[in-house]
Amino acid sequence: MARLAGVSRATVSYVLNNTSAVRISEPTRRRVHEAARELGYVPHAAARSLRAGHSRMVLMPAPAVPVGPLYSRFLSELQSALGRLDYTVVQYGTVGRQGDEAARAWAELRPVAVLVPGTGIGPQGVAVLKRAGARAVVTLGPERVEGAHALLMDHEAVGHCVGAHLHARGRRRVGVVVPEEEGLEAFSRPRLAGVRQALRGTDASVTELPLAYTEQAAAELAARWAGSGLDAVFAYNDEYAMLLMRALQDEGLRVPEDVAVVGADDLMLGRLLRPRLTTVHIELPSGRELAELVDQAVRDPGAEPEVRKVLGAALVRRESS
Amino acid sequence: MARLAGVSRATVSYVLNNTSAVRISEPTRRRVHEAARELGYVPHAAARSLRAGHSRMVLMPAPAVPVGPLYSRFLSELQSALGRLDYTVVQYGTVGRQGDEAARAWAELRPVAVLVPGTGIGPQGVAVLKRAGARAVVTLGPERVEGAHALLMDHEAVGHCVGAHLHARGRRRVGVVVPEEEGLEAFSRPRLAGVRQALRGTDASVTELPLAYTEQAAAELAARWAGSGLDAVFAYNDEYAMLLMRALQDEGLRVPEDVAVVGADDLMLGRLLRPRLTTVHIELPSGRELAELVDQAVRDPGAEPEVRKVLGAALVRRESS
Repeated sequence: MARLAGVSRATVSYVLNNTSAVRISEPTRRRVHEAARELGYVPHAAARSLRAGHSRMVLMPAPAVPVGPLYSRFLSELQSALGRLDYTVVQYGTVGRQGDEAARAWAELRPVAVLVPGTGIGPQGVAVLKRAGARAVVTLGPERVEGAHALLMDHEAVGHCVGAHLHARGRRRVGVVVPEEEGLEAFSRPRLAGVRQALRGTDASVTELPLAYTEQAAAELAARWAGSGLDAVFAYNDEYAMLLMRALQDEGLRVPEDVAVVGADDLMLGRLLRPRLTTVHIELPSGRELAELVDQAVRDPGAEPEVRKVLGAALVRRESS
Repeated sequence: MARLAGVSRATVSYVLNNTSAVRISEPTRRRVHEAARELGYVPHAAARSLRAGHSRMVLMPAPAVPVGPLYSRFLSELQSALGRLDYTVVQYGTVGRQGDEAARAWAELRPVAVLVPGTGIGPQGVAVLKRAGARAVVTLGPERVEGAHALLMDHEAVGHCVGAHLHARGRRRVGVVVPEEEGLEAFSRPRLAGVRQALRGTDASVTELPLAYTEQAAAELAARWAGSGLDAVFAYNDEYAMLLMRALQDEGLRVPEDVAVVGADDLMLGRLLRPRLTTVHIELPSGRELAELVDQAVRDPGAEPEVRKVLGAALVRRESS
C-alpha cells in the first residue's frame, strides 16, 4: 500500500490509524486512503481500539420493551448525530440478561460510552462498565442511577397535563389505564402519579384501571364501565386508547359525551379515529443535543454526573375529550 | 485471580479465553469463573477475538426503513436464538451509509457472520465482508445476492393471495397502493406484481395507486375515487389501509359495499377498525430455525450459498372485503 501511495509505511500506519501525534498533509492522507480503497483494505476496529487504548464505540442496549414509532425515530436521530461526531454506534440486544449481568455483557465490548434506555441498569452495573473503561454511562429513563449521567424522562408531566385538561373540561371521575404488559410500569406509574398530582385537592377522583392489550380485556373493562361512574379515561397511550375507545363504543357509550378518552404519543392513528383522539404530544430532546452531551462526557470522564430533564409534554386537544 | 482460584495462570487464561485445545475439568472451570466474578473481571471481546482469529459477533445492520411490530418481534426472537448459540448479536446502524460503503463499515467490526435485512448489500459488499473474515453473509429480503446465503422473503405471495381473494369476491377493478415513502419499494413492487399475476388472464384490471402516508394524500385519493370506478383496493399494509379506509369513509363511500379494502400484516389495529379489516397474515420463519442456519453457515464457510424461501402468506378474511 505504501508503494501504491508513494509514501513510507509509517505514514500509511499513521493515516489509517488516524494518529493525531504526527502532522500529515491533507493530500498525503487522501493518497493513502485512495490506495487503501483500491486495495480493498478495511481497518480492524477492534485492533485499532486496542492500540488506541479505547474505542469510539457507543453502545446502546436495545430496549427490552417494544418501542413506539416516536421513540424509535428519536433513537435513529441520536445514532446519526453520534455517527457525525465519529462514534460508531452499536445496538446490542440484552438477550434475556438483566441488570448487572447485562452490564457485564456490554462491558465485554469495551465501549467508550454506554447509553442505557429505560431502567436496564443499576449502580453496580455502572461501576462494572466504568471499570471496563467506559468513560461515560448515560441513562435515558424515569430515574437517575448513581454514577451515571441521567437524561430524565419525566413521565409525570405527561399525566399531569392530562389530569389538568380533564378537570378543566368538567370531568370529575377519571380512570387511568395501567397496562399489564411487562416493562411498561416505568412509564405507566409516573403517568398515573402525574394525573393524581394534577387532581390533588380538587373534587375529582382517580381510579386505576389495569388493562392487557387484548380485545377481550378491553371488552370486559368496557362492560363494567356503566357501573363504574367514570366520566373520563387517560388510556396510557394512543394505541391503548384506540383499543379501549373501540370497546367503549361497541358497548354503546358515546365518546366524549359519556366518556372522554385521552391518549398519548400523538401518533397518526389518533387523527384517523372518529372522534379524533385527544392526545399528549411528547417532545423528546433532539438527537444532536444528546450526542453532544455524550461527547462532552467522554472528553471529561471525571466530571460529576449530570442530571437533565429532557421530556416536554403538551396536550393536543381533538374531539374525544 | 490464579491465586484466588488455586490454579495456574495458564489455566486461568485457557478458561477465560475458552480455549478448546486444552482439556480443563468442569470444577476447575467453575472455580476460575467464580474467582473472575469475585474480582469483577470482564473479558475483552475484541482482544479475545483477535487472539482467536475470529469473533463470535453476528452483525445485523439495523434496517434503514422503520420496521413494523411483526418484523421487530421476529428480529428479537432471532437475536435470542443466536444468543443461546453463544453468538453476540450486535445491531449496527448504517448511519446514512449505503450499499458497499455500509458493508465496509460493518467489516471494520470483523463479524463472524452478517445478517442483512432488506436490500442493503450488493455482491461487492459481500466480497468485502468475506475478505474481512466474515464466514457467512446471509440476506433476508426479496432478492438473492451473489455470494451470500439468501432467505428469500417472497412478497409476491402476499399480493397473490389478495388478488385471488378479491377476484373470488367478485371485484374486477382493483387498485393497489404503492407507498411513496422511500425504502418500501422492495416490498411494494413484488406485492403489486403478485396481484397482477393472480389476475392475469381474468377480466379484472389492476391500477397502481401511489400514496404518501399523510391524511391529505389519502383525502385527495379518496376524492378521486368515485371517478375511478375502482371497486377494491389492496392498501399495501394495515396502516395504509387504516389511513385510506378512513378517507374513503369520510368521502361517503361504503366499505365493503362500494369498495373492498384489504391490508397486510394482521396487526391489532385492523381488528379494531369498523368494518374489521381483511388482511394477510404473514408467517416469518422461526428465529431458532434461522439461527441454526447461520450457525451452520459459520461452521462450513466453504459451502455453496443456500437459497430458502421463508415467507408464508395467508389471507384473513374479516368484514372489509
